[in-house]
Amino acid sequence: MEGLAASEISLDLAATHAVLVEIFEGNSISEVLDRINGLREKQALALGPHPPIPQRVTALRKELQKLSLDGFLIPLANEHQGEFIEKRSQRLEWLTGFSGSAGLAVVLRDRAAIFTDGRYTLQVSKQVDPKIFKPNHVTETPPNTWICENLEIGSRIGFDPWLHTPSDVKNLEQLCIRNGIKLLPLNENPLDTIWKNQPPRPLGPVVVQSHQYTGKSSAIKRSEIGNALIEAGEDAIVITALDSIAWLLNIRGFDVAHTPLTLSYAIVDQAGKVDWFIDPRKLTDQTKTLVGNGVFVHEPANFVPMLSALGAKEKKVRLDLKTASEAVRNILTKSGAKVVDGGDLCLLPKAIKSASEINGSLAAHVRDGAALTSFLSWLSRTTKHSTVTEMSAASMLYEFRRKDPKFRGLSFETISGSGPNGAIVHYRVTPETDRRLSAGDIYLVDSGAQYLDGTTDVTRTVYIEQTNGFPAPLTVQEHFTRVLKGHIAIAEARFPHGTSGPQIDALARIALWEVGLDYDHGTGHGVGSYLSVHEGPQRISKKGGTVPMEPGMIISNEPGYYKEGVYGIRIENLVVVTVSSELAGDKKDRILSFETLTLAPIDKNLIIPQLLNENEKNWLNQYHQRVRDTLSNIVDEDARDWLIEATTRI
Amino acid sequence: MEGLAASEISLDLAATHAVLVEIFEGNSISEVLDRINGLREKQALALGPHPPIPQRVTALRKELQKLSLDGFLIPLANEHQGEFIEKRSQRLEWLTGFSGSAGLAVVLRDRAAIFTDGRYTLQVSKQVDPKIFKPNHVTETPPNTWICENLEIGSRIGFDPWLHTPSDVKNLEQLCIRNGIKLLPLNENPLDTIWKNQPPRPLGPVVVQSHQYTGKSSAIKRSEIGNALIEAGEDAIVITALDSIAWLLNIRGFDVAHTPLTLSYAIVDQAGKVDWFIDPRKLTDQTKTLVGNGVFVHEPANFVPMLSALGAKEKKVRLDLKTASEAVRNILTKSGAKVVDGGDLCLLPKAIKSASEINGSLAAHVRDGAALTSFLSWLSRTTKHSTVTEMSAASMLYEFRRKDPKFRGLSFETISGSGPNGAIVHYRVTPETDRRLSAGDIYLVDSGAQYLDGTTDVTRTVYIEQTNGFPAPLTVQEHFTRVLKGHIAIAEARFPHGTSGPQIDALARIALWEVGLDYDHGTGHGVGSYLSVHEGPQRISKKGGTVPMEPGMIISNEPGYYKEGVYGIRIENLVVVTVSSELAGDKKDRILSFETLTLAPIDKNLIIPQLLNENEKNWLNQYHQRVRDTLSNIVDEDARDWLIEATTRI
Repeated sequence: MEGLAASEISLDLAATHAVLVEIFEGNSISEVLDRINGLREKQALALGPHPPIPQRVTALRKELQKLSLDGFLIPLANEHQGEFIEKRSQRLEWLTGFSGSAGLAVVLRDRAAIFTDGRYTLQVSKQVDPKIFKPNHVTETPPNTWICENLEIGSRIGFDPWLHTPSDVKNLEQLCIRNGIKLLPLNENPLDTIWKNQPPRPLGPVVVQSHQYTGKSSAIKRSEIGNALIEAGEDAIVITALDSIAWLLNIRGFDVAHTPLTLSYAIVDQAGKVDWFIDPRKLTDQTKTLVGNGVFVHEPANFVPMLSALGAKEKKVRLDLKTASEAVRNILTKSGAKVVDGGDLCLLPKAIKSASEINGSLAAHVRDGAALTSFLSWLSRTTKHSTVTEMSAASMLYEFRRKDPKFRGLSFETISGSGPNGAIVHYRVTPETDRRLSAGDIYLVDSGAQYLDGTTDVTRTVYIEQTNGFPAPLTVQEHFTRVLKGHIAIAEARFPHGTSGPQIDALARIALWEVGLDYDHGTGHGVGSYLSVHEGPQRISKKGGTVPMEPGMIISNEPGYYKEGVYGIRIENLVVVTVSSELAGDKKDRILSFETLTLAPIDKNLIIPQLLNENEKNWLNQYHQRVRDTLSNIVDEDARDWLIEATTRI
Repeated sequence: MEGLAASEISLDLAATHAVLVEIFEGNSISEVLDRINGLREKQALALGPHPPIPQRVTALRKELQKLSLDGFLIPLANEHQGEFIEKRSQRLEWLTGFSGSAGLAVVLRDRAAIFTDGRYTLQVSKQVDPKIFKPNHVTETPPNTWICENLEIGSRIGFDPWLHTPSDVKNLEQLCIRNGIKLLPLNENPLDTIWKNQPPRPLGPVVVQSHQYTGKSSAIKRSEIGNALIEAGEDAIVITALDSIAWLLNIRGFDVAHTPLTLSYAIVDQAGKVDWFIDPRKLTDQTKTLVGNGVFVHEPANFVPMLSALGAKEKKVRLDLKTASEAVRNILTKSGAKVVDGGDLCLLPKAIKSASEINGSLAAHVRDGAALTSFLSWLSRTTKHSTVTEMSAASMLYEFRRKDPKFRGLSFETISGSGPNGAIVHYRVTPETDRRLSAGDIYLVDSGAQYLDGTTDVTRTVYIEQTNGFPAPLTVQEHFTRVLKGHIAIAEARFPHGTSGPQIDALARIALWEVGLDYDHGTGHGVGSYLSVHEGPQRISKKGGTVPMEPGMIISNEPGYYKEGVYGIRIENLVVVTVSSELAGDKKDRILSFETLTLAPIDKNLIIPQLLNENEKNWLNQYHQRVRDTLSNIVDEDARDWLIEATTRI
């Protein structure tokens, strides 16, 4: 059922405009999802079977020989360096069999290697033949080092400049020069040449995100970007990040999984004029009309000539060298443009939500909270006398969510882990790992959805009650309570304007540090408005940015604790930064605080009340009161009874 | 009496070796202090009177004309960029009259300006003639901007390259180039040419800091620095920071105020061999013997030729471009050396104290705590029926401290501020600002001393009790209690190895932030071992370094709150980072915590017990119990009675 998530709205087929209109007009979202799923299956059949992996690697090596190359890099990336990648660009999986979310392969004439991080060590060993691709831990043996150690002086290694950032290329290039290796950007990706049945580019429809949800017109956004360029003395900015384009034009697409993005490029000038490079087949009549003045649609094939034209006029062009393609930088520079390494100008205004976006998020969180509460209530009733597994639980949660008319898919693949699986921070359940939820288990479910009016991301950790009424072990309860103390410390924090997330990160950890514990991930990430579930520039983490938290930013609050091989605990709500109403003293700066958006009970079976101080108890009781008041009239009777019990005061 | 502080041990006279030996051998430190004070007075008389300031400025302008210069920079700095500066290098004060601790003047042909930060705005207006030097706020009108706006294209401005860091010069140079101004390093400082009775270089004796206090031989330290150079592939390091040299050679000097430093330079090579450039008249026989093998003493005049020699051999030389002199960088580069901008290799090992240094610090803090407790007890008895002022209080505190045989002076000028003066963070009492401590006042005293076995720095804020027994206003008590909550949060924090100070800074502020308050300074700075009272690389502050806190580092814990024009509150103890003994759970990393070094009562008259939670009350009671147990037998009877009362449980 996971398979019906937002990923499935990605149309990996050469649909015509007519098909798109037919699908999206006059149908409920459930019907659309079903329809698209059918089309996907047809497409997979139409593409036909793939040759076995050894043949794919052999074919690639032959191709490299033709190009007089000694090696080639295969990253898991598309031209936009996003989190979710369309099938066509999943070259790493096709070549190696590895289906994880991050990795890189290097193929040389007589050897090849794959590089992944610690969370995928096990998965690589199951999916990839080590005789073909030597598995490596990416930080222990960095690919750049491996390349230099395995190639002789005078070797030539190729890469696809559309799939690497200028920063990455620069690092590798310096190392190659020092080792006498030639690093060559290729015009064509040799892997695409040999991948006979590579899926076509997706053609998901582009729809307008209405003003009711965005609260700010694209024209105003564009003119603000134009003004920022004037102020910086730059002629134009090239935007390759898809969520920035979606935000700027107030449009949403369906090209990649879990995030409503459309593959395209944009160039904005000082007047706020946008040249938008997108397959016109993806545009409905409504989109064409509403995008309106000042946005000029071009065929994607015209992107490169337009970059060269900027260069020919010796324009000063801003580009985010940490997220753009090396190809874009190279074309601009070669043709005469002055490339300025500036941040993406959409990043900060996108992160600071408008009042409409915040209202939308509040509304979406009420409905999402009702779905999650219904699920938790169902789980509590069902696990006592039935067989629920991690997979079936995730499916059930999906069913509760998809009933909502504004539902547009999951915002990421649900993490549904019980017992030891809950301790794997990036766990994704598969039929092989699927576990039954048994009495006494600690079950962690981290999930979220895309709604037309907002994006959600929530984690609850619950105790699967035993029929004999035995409580969870006290150590588990203590760990849960300490995670909760950290969560409350962030939820309750008040701080002066100018404070960055890393400055308050320790508040979430101190109760764990007190007993020598910690968690090995950030405390919070930015969240988009019916956009990416992970967005910058703000974050709450041990290290990283000094970008201050601004009113209107949405951030997750998700401390955790993981006992390897035994259980995992995480409590995650989304919060929005607000100006605190209770200014005090002679302080002139604004004092900010968080308002919690997420609404769902926190499992009291895992709390030791004596470990909470009065403030913390008050926070929990007030939060539960709000959850109950908001949700009890919109969930069904069974869920309501459970909700009332789950939210009584401690 | 302040005048008898460590600054007074600075020998600004051309004493001979014989005089030094006479002074330092067979005399108590008090006798030495008195003797040196007498010598200083004689010296001042010998130097004779100075011409009035307008004549000094005119003389400088004539000198600039001779050199065909349109302007000249006068920073408050010596060749070593330290915090405390010998009289000879206090050129800014001599030229402008401004005696603050930070500032810069720029003299052009027809105008001049002085730049200071906000804390000195008032002082500048009192000390400096605005018709001669236009006063500017250094961040509102940065000197670099002012220079470019007030000089025409083609102008030539000079600077003394020994008094500016390469980083500073680089910034100014780029701006000058853009504005068509020529920035010229000068071989001779024109101000020294016109300053007829400029004090000579100090000739404080250099004494060996014995192994009992350092715990680590200079030979071992030097060989470790040599090994670090080998590892980095660098041939040598030039060290200009005086506290690094003192640490490396296990010596202490008496050339500048408040810190036992000797003016000198050092070059260390891969073998750990040190070329030490120091006036040999400062070395006693004991020093010469004990410095021992591997340290070669050179006349300071040989420093520049030795730098050039490194260049002639094309050596790779490490230099900290943020603290070294531009002159050193320039000489090295011009002569052919490859300058590597690396950190000062002594910084981290100096910050991580040896067991002997920590034991020394503990012992020094017991004696310092007894002196401070005696002072606080005296203050409580005396203010009731007598006339104590900020100045006389500071003098009295000095008297309590100087009785100790290991006392070597104050570690900085005492901040003694009552009422509104307490709200001035860097307040230094002068006869003009001196205030009587009246019943009902909030009095802040921030002070510290240098002892042979350790450096102290402590702040206490006390309520000057009223005879009618009226307590301090509740708002003051609330502010004090919230500062105390922040102090306790740091004191009690436990955190994993790898955590930096800025990560825990918010713990000290959250109780203030809660009610919309904050303080505008860092929470903690590193402290040396009978060395600088401010040292890096660790710090606890809103922004700044990611250097992890390591066991053995000494840091201050000093949150505060300042109500402008009314009162100031600060509670400061020094703490040492320790490995926590109670490791828990399955965490592999070490968990660190702080052990408080400073011992003195915290004024219970300013605490609202109801605002403290149980943990916080326990901390305070246990701390007070420790203060009482440690000090009650080493203070006199009056102080003991007061101490017992001041440390009863709340």
